[in-house]
Amino acid sequence: MYRGIVSKLKSPYLKIRDVPKNLRCFSVSSLLKVDENLVFKKEQFNSRHIGPRDRDIITMLDTLGLKSLDELTNRAVPERIRLTKPLDIEEAVGEYELINKITQIAEKNQIWRSYIGMGYHNCCVPHALMRNIFENPGWTTSYTPYQPEISQGRLESFLNYQTMVSELTGLEVSNASLLDEGTAAAEALSLCYRQNKRKKMFLSDKLHPQTISVVETRSRSLGLEIEVGNVFAFDFSNHDVAGVLFQYPDTEGNVLDFTKLVEEAHAHGTLVCCAADLLSLTLLHPPSDFGVDIAIGTSQRFGVPLGYGGPHAGFFACKQSLVRLMPGRMVGVTRDAAGRDGYRLALQTREQHIRRDKATSNICTAQALLANMSAMFAVYHGPQGLKDIATRVHNFALVLNYGLQQDGNRQVNKLFFDTLKVYPIIGIEEVRHRAEQKKINLRYYDDHESVGISLDETVTEEDINDLFYVFGSSQKVQDIRENTGSSKASDASIAKSAFKRTSPFLTHPVFNSHHSENRIVRYMKILENKDVSLVHSMIPLGSCTMKLNATTEMMPCSFKHFTDMHPFVPAEQAKGYKQLFDELERDLCAITGFDNISFQPNSGAQGEYAGLRAIQCYQEATGNGHKNICLIPVSAHGTNPASAQMAGMKVEAVKVKQDGSIDMDDLRSKAEKYKGKLSCLMITYPSTFGVYEETIADICNLIHENGGQVYLDGANMNAQVGLCRPGDYGCDVSHLNLHKTFCIPHGGGGPGMGPIGVKSHLAPFLPGHPVVNPFGDKSSSNGGAVSAGPFGSAAILPISWAYIKMMGGEGLRKATQVAILNANYMSKVLEPYYVTLFKSPTSNLCAHEFIIDVREFKKTAHIEAHDIAKRLMDYGFHAPTMSWPVAGTLMIEPTESEDKQELDRFCDAMISIRQEIKDIEDEKMDIRINPLKMAPHTQEQVTSSNWERPYTREQAAFPAPFVRPEVKIWPTVARIDDIYGDKHLVCTCPPILDEYNY
Amino acid sequence: MYRGIVSKLKSPYLKIRDVPKNLRCFSVSSLLKVDENLVFKKEQFNSRHIGPRDRDIITMLDTLGLKSLDELTNRAVPERIRLTKPLDIEEAVGEYELINKITQIAEKNQIWRSYIGMGYHNCCVPHALMRNIFENPGWTTSYTPYQPEISQGRLESFLNYQTMVSELTGLEVSNASLLDEGTAAAEALSLCYRQNKRKKMFLSDKLHPQTISVVETRSRSLGLEIEVGNVFAFDFSNHDVAGVLFQYPDTEGNVLDFTKLVEEAHAHGTLVCCAADLLSLTLLHPPSDFGVDIAIGTSQRFGVPLGYGGPHAGFFACKQSLVRLMPGRMVGVTRDAAGRDGYRLALQTREQHIRRDKATSNICTAQALLANMSAMFAVYHGPQGLKDIATRVHNFALVLNYGLQQDGNRQVNKLFFDTLKVYPIIGIEEVRHRAEQKKINLRYYDDHESVGISLDETVTEEDINDLFYVFGSSQKVQDIRENTGSSKASDASIAKSAFKRTSPFLTHPVFNSHHSENRIVRYMKILENKDVSLVHSMIPLGSCTMKLNATTEMMPCSFKHFTDMHPFVPAEQAKGYKQLFDELERDLCAITGFDNISFQPNSGAQGEYAGLRAIQCYQEATGNGHKNICLIPVSAHGTNPASAQMAGMKVEAVKVKQDGSIDMDDLRSKAEKYKGKLSCLMITYPSTFGVYEETIADICNLIHENGGQVYLDGANMNAQVGLCRPGDYGCDVSHLNLHKTFCIPHGGGGPGMGPIGVKSHLAPFLPGHPVVNPFGDKSSSNGGAVSAGPFGSAAILPISWAYIKMMGGEGLRKATQVAILNANYMSKVLEPYYVTLFKSPTSNLCAHEFIIDVREFKKTAHIEAHDIAKRLMDYGFHAPTMSWPVAGTLMIEPTESEDKQELDRFCDAMISIRQEIKDIEDEKMDIRINPLKMAPHTQEQVTSSNWERPYTREQAAFPAPFVRPEVKIWPTVARIDDIYGDKHLVCTCPPILDEYNY
Repeated sequence: MYRGIVSKLKSPYLKIRDVPKNLRCFSVSSLLKVDENLVFKKEQFNSRHIGPRDRDIITMLDTLGLKSLDELTNRAVPERIRLTKPLDIEEAVGEYELINKITQIAEKNQIWRSYIGMGYHNCCVPHALMRNIFENPGWTTSYTPYQPEISQGRLESFLNYQTMVSELTGLEVSNASLLDEGTAAAEALSLCYRQNKRKKMFLSDKLHPQTISVVETRSRSLGLEIEVGNVFAFDFSNHDVAGVLFQYPDTEGNVLDFTKLVEEAHAHGTLVCCAADLLSLTLLHPPSDFGVDIAIGTSQRFGVPLGYGGPHAGFFACKQSLVRLMPGRMVGVTRDAAGRDGYRLALQTREQHIRRDKATSNICTAQALLANMSAMFAVYHGPQGLKDIATRVHNFALVLNYGLQQDGNRQVNKLFFDTLKVYPIIGIEEVRHRAEQKKINLRYYDDHESVGISLDETVTEEDINDLFYVFGSSQKVQDIRENTGSSKASDASIAKSAFKRTSPFLTHPVFNSHHSENRIVRYMKILENKDVSLVHSMIPLGSCTMKLNATTEMMPCSFKHFTDMHPFVPAEQAKGYKQLFDELERDLCAITGFDNISFQPNSGAQGEYAGLRAIQCYQEATGNGHKNICLIPVSAHGTNPASAQMAGMKVEAVKVKQDGSIDMDDLRSKAEKYKGKLSCLMITYPSTFGVYEETIADICNLIHENGGQVYLDGANMNAQVGLCRPGDYGCDVSHLNLHKTFCIPHGGGGPGMGPIGVKSHLAPFLPGHPVVNPFGDKSSSNGGAVSAGPFGSAAILPISWAYIKMMGGEGLRKATQVAILNANYMSKVLEPYYVTLFKSPTSNLCAHEFIIDVREFKKTAHIEAHDIAKRLMDYGFHAPTMSWPVAGTLMIEPTESEDKQELDRFCDAMISIRQEIKDIEDEKMDIRINPLKMAPHTQEQVTSSNWERPYTREQAAFPAPFVRPEVKIWPTVARIDDIYGDKHLVCTCPPILDEYNY
Repeated sequence: MYRGIVSKLKSPYLKIRDVPKNLRCFSVSSLLKVDENLVFKKEQFNSRHIGPRDRDIITMLDTLGLKSLDELTNRAVPERIRLTKPLDIEEAVGEYELINKITQIAEKNQIWRSYIGMGYHNCCVPHALMRNIFENPGWTTSYTPYQPEISQGRLESFLNYQTMVSELTGLEVSNASLLDEGTAAAEALSLCYRQNKRKKMFLSDKLHPQTISVVETRSRSLGLEIEVGNVFAFDFSNHDVAGVLFQYPDTEGNVLDFTKLVEEAHAHGTLVCCAADLLSLTLLHPPSDFGVDIAIGTSQRFGVPLGYGGPHAGFFACKQSLVRLMPGRMVGVTRDAAGRDGYRLALQTREQHIRRDKATSNICTAQALLANMSAMFAVYHGPQGLKDIATRVHNFALVLNYGLQQDGNRQVNKLFFDTLKVYPIIGIEEVRHRAEQKKINLRYYDDHESVGISLDETVTEEDINDLFYVFGSSQKVQDIRENTGSSKASDASIAKSAFKRTSPFLTHPVFNSHHSENRIVRYMKILENKDVSLVHSMIPLGSCTMKLNATTEMMPCSFKHFTDMHPFVPAEQAKGYKQLFDELERDLCAITGFDNISFQPNSGAQGEYAGLRAIQCYQEATGNGHKNICLIPVSAHGTNPASAQMAGMKVEAVKVKQDGSIDMDDLRSKAEKYKGKLSCLMITYPSTFGVYEETIADICNLIHENGGQVYLDGANMNAQVGLCRPGDYGCDVSHLNLHKTFCIPHGGGGPGMGPIGVKSHLAPFLPGHPVVNPFGDKSSSNGGAVSAGPFGSAAILPISWAYIKMMGGEGLRKATQVAILNANYMSKVLEPYYVTLFKSPTSNLCAHEFIIDVREFKKTAHIEAHDIAKRLMDYGFHAPTMSWPVAGTLMIEPTESEDKQELDRFCDAMISIRQEIKDIEDEKMDIRINPLKMAPHTQEQVTSSNWERPYTREQAAFPAPFVRPEVKIWPTVARIDDIYGDKHLVCTCPPILDEYNY
């Protein structure tokens, strides 16, 4: 009997005095300075972040035959690259102190009223959503829903999102969000290229400038030609344009008719993409009425704070015929093993983790949390509520328009939703002066003659009166509404135009039921409780570093001074953010050994792309523009080749040896073979096999010697912080998954954040931005934008900032050490039952993660990795990473935040599963109908009167002593049938037949 | 088949345009003013607060044969008392606007550093607890755990609290919190009186002044004599003292030895009570070492914000021998129907809802939420962590003491924990001047010569250096610590004294396991998920008004400017609170028709007591001190007679008629009989039977004519707001359960808040306070304090303030109307299945709640009310109020916040249960083993291989179509055995046998 073996390893309770001083959680410095009776023990955040207690650490080290954490990591990390000095990070601050500190920084941001528009609008974030989703670890700490049986809550919400986008745009299918409007636009045009293979794109000059910039950056790498101009004057008859993209309403606020344009484009084989504003579409007829193929945009103004540019969800909808070319994650309906409806990610075969450099896109992270907030915003308001909001915004715009024109200002948009373009009669400078006086930001056009005003949901009568003042007008809203102006003002309304929306939207019950707060809170709770997150148990995902996302780190993300800031405000108003960025850049440079950081990439994949772009631009600038070979080990993350392809490089695979290490001979021969054309190597360290390779410095040298640059995939940074620095051992650029190593929560599949660190020679090629220079006065960049926001998802950077500040150098190093300890401890405990595939040949240790081999069970018991993954759900655990990087294996990364008891429970579950496999091997259990093959088990199944299985209900649902009813996690569907769903694609909410609609 | 009947009543979907304008959620005024195309529909909070949509309201009215809400309430509320004008309340503000508004108010509070002490200490509230308990509706919206099977989470936490208090004080048993330290002291001395019937109490003059005041107020009513003086000089030999109470460390910070004193007291039959500071007890030996019988105090500094005085939990611990006299709720271990451990409220027979005027106390609400925070604070820190905190505070005090003495200041406490009493060498005025300069509050003693300084967990080195500056000293902490001062300073330490604690505490695993954030978050989540709260389903508790507690109302409770304020700061620093109180008083007066409000009573029962005290003082002041008869209908809340008894009155019961209305003949005869001695009548309106009595105004007249005052129990205020006003129809005083009608959440059993409204003649007798005059400059009061805090639980008042501001007069009225509609709709739907006991004979309507009679089923099917209550859990519902006010019945109060679908689901559950009863009646189901008698059903039972019941597993756990696995609420224990637990009393954490300790 395997069960319970781990408990034997538990040590008796150790008192704190038994713990060697160097292992205590309290800072050693304070222990040494003063009389013992006057020690001021200050609570260290690292003792909250790091799971195992010091006494457990001793036990665990003992299991490994080691004496100290330093002994462990000195053995694990090759001496050649080992960091020999402490990290240059300020002393750790406590949690209480931290909040004071960041409050002071936040308050350096000045929150003015911003009517800048350009894709970013203030909105009333429903407080019930803010508290119960955005501030709720049950929603924020869940992982990407790759295990659908324990993710039905998020998946349902994503489906609501897709339905909402689909119905508002009028297009048949939508995905479950992209990173932002800019990248959605770039993806749309890439799709056009993939569809018709034409290499030219036409962009309207009335798109938001950041959209144009992102598209240009991305297209340039792919060798696509971009033309920007008046979309109505363009001649498609050359049959060479892959796609055309325009904005509706356009960036200046104009609502124009694109019907003829679309006909024209289609007639010549050009696909048509439309950037649209979701709120306006509740009043305007949908872009589908023009006949467009693709609609994209941002759903920010649906209940997501401005956040100085992000994170928000970009949306992407298209015609059914294009669905298999669509980028990003899409949720679809399928059936489970019991034949009931269930949801899961559909058509995953399009994605980078399957198709690598042939994928539709390198997109990995979505903006799940924000998409869910937007979807819930629509659920909460319903179609009528959304229409009411839009009408109010529009009506204010009508009144403003009327009043300004009464006073002789010229407003040029004949039809508009919320945005006016005004040539003020008192002149621009006077307007600017008065606006500053009232703390109002407007959009000042480059012509120095006109001003843009975009209204939003938060605008009040008083705000409009202030705007009248800004334009030197003495009009008042009340006068206009109550007197003759009322009907005249409304003459310009959408309702009186041909653009008035007549088609229904959001008719599904889910959008028509949850309008009281009790209802929406219960609905959110039902969804939350379907899903496994870090509030339930460890999520041991190899390469995904699901560590603690501490409350204190999360709190600043709701600070008004961070949330309520438009990304394009003048720099003087954003001094708090500036300080935050500067300090975080300094700290991240200290940790990585790089010289500069760009915060713009808002996902890991985006970071890869930006980093490769920087390399490519550098090669060009040094006369090596022809270099385009990117060497990537076959063991790399799927995003690597997808990104390299997107960056216009040609991917050459490098072999790895049986033990998982890079085949140095193959690398040498490839490096030499492509010497003249070698742009770079992309490599992950420690390797994706969970091993610190001894040769990493040699590898970097080798690439440099052959004229290449070294790109480090930062996914495994959690094994390096405080122990070694990529910048020291030869890397030129790396992205940092702040949502892995630096505590940004996964949000159920995003937001992520992938800033890149570079050596100084690459700094000039970091991403720029057409509206706000991310480098401030420091310098400018030659790089185009890679994200819509100048600083990516700025509003979640306080999380990483706070983590570093609270850990300090010592704490960060200890975290890394414990992450390595936890992995090695588990590997050791599991050793008698499962083979760990790769370890360092010199130290016999793994890094912060390890791969167990379960391939033999296919032969011995017909059991595969995913059977074990599903069975783990019955034990209350999320599966480790499955079949990556080696098919048929499981990769386990416990992180430092999980304590010994949790590791022991997980190991006991794995050991118990091994016994279950053995029962099949020994023919004590049926090979087809057994707890693994039938996993996961639902309530419906085990409480059914009908139970005809060769194992008991208890074995099914309560297979270990620690799986007790009060902690039992119930999958809400049985095993999901992926293939069925992909064959019968349904990507919007299915009808509810049940009268009891929750 | 009864099931599903309700769905037939559902109307087809109505479009908004079909809804008559007077029923729409949008304010009518804005609809009428302007051109239809320029309507600015502003979202109304009332449409979020009120459950049913307007289209549902029409359907529901239709069910009742009514046309409008006004028709309903005009029929329900007697014309004579009906309010004929709109409430004088400002126009409703939106949720977004509200937060801006209250932020501005909050920021008028100035947050200085306060070292005032006196029972209130700043602390570091762990952010993980703040967010996951205090800000989490899963914890805040649950009800008092009277239904233990769906309350095991809270009950476990309470048990942790009791264990913590018990072990820190060294006394065998503890309750699960009282309202504050002051009332705990009063309860302690009442216990002494109950135990030995002596009528004299001796109080140390070194108690906190508010403690003395609360004890005096309470004792006076009971005719007890209080003497305050030097406790060491007192002579107990007269054998006439019931109890003595002293403080340890005392209010000035002195740590003294009470051993001899206790011996002396005991030798003469006097019981001994000790007010203690929990944090200090981690270093000091516990009061049990002195031999005390009772220890009381506050657990505020264990993780609960100052909140300008509350809410915090008071604690109460005593010797085992006194347990049956102990006041308040106590949790105990018992077993369930399956023989497993479970928790429930123990010894309820002591409580007012059972024993009425014979109860040990009138206490009903505890401070559950805050007790849980304090318990979790101890769980999170563990014994060593608490000791470290205490040591740091103490060491700072040692350094401060040493430094000040070095500079010639006289510090008089020989041994101290955190509090010094200093005679400053530079004089008081200079100290005060310097303190104000540094924004520091100190305790300035009345002698104008000495100053008190109490340090706390938040204090830093810099703070101490600032204190040195305040005292004109140039000492620096670092110098003292690093130089010779270090060991000298520590000479005064507790560790070097005879008071050093040597006994262990918090040795239970629960206090030694959850120290990382992942662990504590998961532990809190496990507990949360065991309990039913409003985030799951309606809690239809008659007389408890479990309405929505909106997020927007809750948010300000976490604002730093509300949380971080000591209750005894100078008034100039608390201008925000002042404004809040003034506005709330104004609004509550407008709603009730009273002239003044006192916010001091921090529970409903406390409000009753304060109201009766005001009446009694008024009678005294008008020469009627001899009047002591309090008439109370037999149908009254149990707290009424308990409070009257506490207020020193003699309770005379008034009969009620068969139809539930007051027997006017009996009332008349009693009023006349006691004419010369009639102090007052206590009455509930609408009656506790859920009926608007036509005679209420007559009743008030009758009492007044006979020289009595009318006390209105405000529990049913939710049926009156906007429809009638107690102040109009003749009431003189009433308490307002802000945690019922005005949206303060129940917190799992508290905090409550019971301010009282009075007519102006009673205003001079509202509660006063010895430290802060709650009336400001307005006037002073003759009343003593009833709570420790001058404004009770000030920090939760923003909730009620926000509710009123966001609803406006119209919204409040509509809420009341819908509350009445919901009750009448349910009563109507259930009519064919259950008899509603009482309705108004004239209108045939109930008020906002109704009682269904299930007594017949005892005869027909052996089924009692509690069987139905337990069976409702299987359907996912919390039971209605059971067997009160009529034994063997269920009282249902849906509140306005539940929508039609939820009401229908609940009714369907009840209808389905009626079918289950019928099956027993028809002998289709066993009379002993049936789904009702065996309810609730646990996972363990229905997933067991062993199922030998005459009904299926599905019938057991999924008895209705809406009970689906994804919304299933599983009781974590089977039916709890109350009697077993009371016979085998265990009130601290039981040992964990399981190796897998979550």
